[in-house]
Amino acid sequence: MTIDKSWYERKHYPKLILISGPSGVGKDTIARRLIERRPDDFYFVVTATTRPIREGEVHGCDYFFLSNDEFARMIEKNELLEYAVVYNDYKGIPKQQIRDALASGRDVIMRVDVQGAATVRKLVPNGIFVFLMTETEESLVRRLRERKSETAEGLNLRIAAARQEIRRMDEFDYCVVNHEGQQEAAVDEILSIIDAAHCRVEQEPVTL
Amino acid sequence: MTIDKSWYERKHYPKLILISGPSGVGKDTIARRLIERRPDDFYFVVTATTRPIREGEVHGCDYFFLSNDEFARMIEKNELLEYAVVYNDYKGIPKQQIRDALASGRDVIMRVDVQGAATVRKLVPNGIFVFLMTETEESLVRRLRERKSETAEGLNLRIAAARQEIRRMDEFDYCVVNHEGQQEAAVDEILSIIDAAHCRVEQEPVTL
Repeated sequence: MTIDKSWYERKHYPKLILISGPSGVGKDTIARRLIERRPDDFYFVVTATTRPIREGEVHGCDYFFLSNDEFARMIEKNELLEYAVVYNDYKGIPKQQIRDALASGRDVIMRVDVQGAATVRKLVPNGIFVFLMTETEESLVRRLRERKSETAEGLNLRIAAARQEIRRMDEFDYCVVNHEGQQEAAVDEILSIIDAAHCRVEQEPVTL
Repeated sequence: MTIDKSWYERKHYPKLILISGPSGVGKDTIARRLIERRPDDFYFVVTATTRPIREGEVHGCDYFFLSNDEFARMIEKNELLEYAVVYNDYKGIPKQQIRDALASGRDVIMRVDVQGAATVRKLVPNGIFVFLMTETEESLVRRLRERKSETAEGLNLRIAAARQEIRRMDEFDYCVVNHEGQQEAAVDEILSIIDAAHCRVEQEPVTL
């Protein structure tokens, strides 16, 4: 007889982990590194977007790069957990992918913009919402400038938005600082957050 | 300017971590190992007790071994965070030690019996309450028998009490299984729980 059987079951409820934070903070890289550290435990949700593909990005791996028409069809069919217009492009999270991942028993790692996180919170209140930060607002602005993938106007818009996004940290469960050159420390902290969640006595399965 | 300064401050609020669980589960060893893993970060609270010293134990290190009179004086002066009669012996946690430790900026690690944990929860609602378990009830009973530091009557009493204690797991925040021969895995899980607590956006300083 295992007195703790029900607890063991709860310990293995797959978790939904949302990595959010201001534009330019490094959400994509950190999410990727989490998967690389534990490929058997984590499932990475690929976001759908209408933004143009950047050099080095792979369709179906970094994002699903969709046309505006394709994206509109997913919205119509209610196939997206959330979607938003981000800097004139659409981004959204396909629901079915998350359901499949949870059914496979793995924890699900998702990148989500700050705006999107608020929407997902309403649908999945027991998700684990992590806000990724830079050390300071200045270092965030510097990172955005160094990215050089934008026009001057686009960059200014992005900086203004990022400043607003930082002020929404309080809507999240956890805050992790992605110190420049210490990326693995941020990854370690997020792994601790996930491991701790699996040890919680009170746990509810994630449903969509 | 650091937009996140207030968050940085919160991140460094010292935490009070209570390691509890049924008698025989290995609370003492796990608490010791936590300190050994991070001696600069953690402060170990030494419990006061009236039970006789066991072979290998050191006064002031494993416990403060007090006479009944000495213990009674501490109760009268309200110098104990909590105290309880455990198997005919008194055990209690000196308050001043915890205050000093928190003031030094370190996280405070405490062992506490299941009964005591409920008392501490009322005084320190924002402590981190960890329930340490064995894999099964049977393995706990086996560990208690192997201890051989008791009379048959004492052992039966302890087993009965341990069975009751296991049923109070739901009063705790976290449950960690101390698998036989995999002690470091339990220590790792508790370290993750502590690290995650320091990343929480909502944090309050512990006060006594």
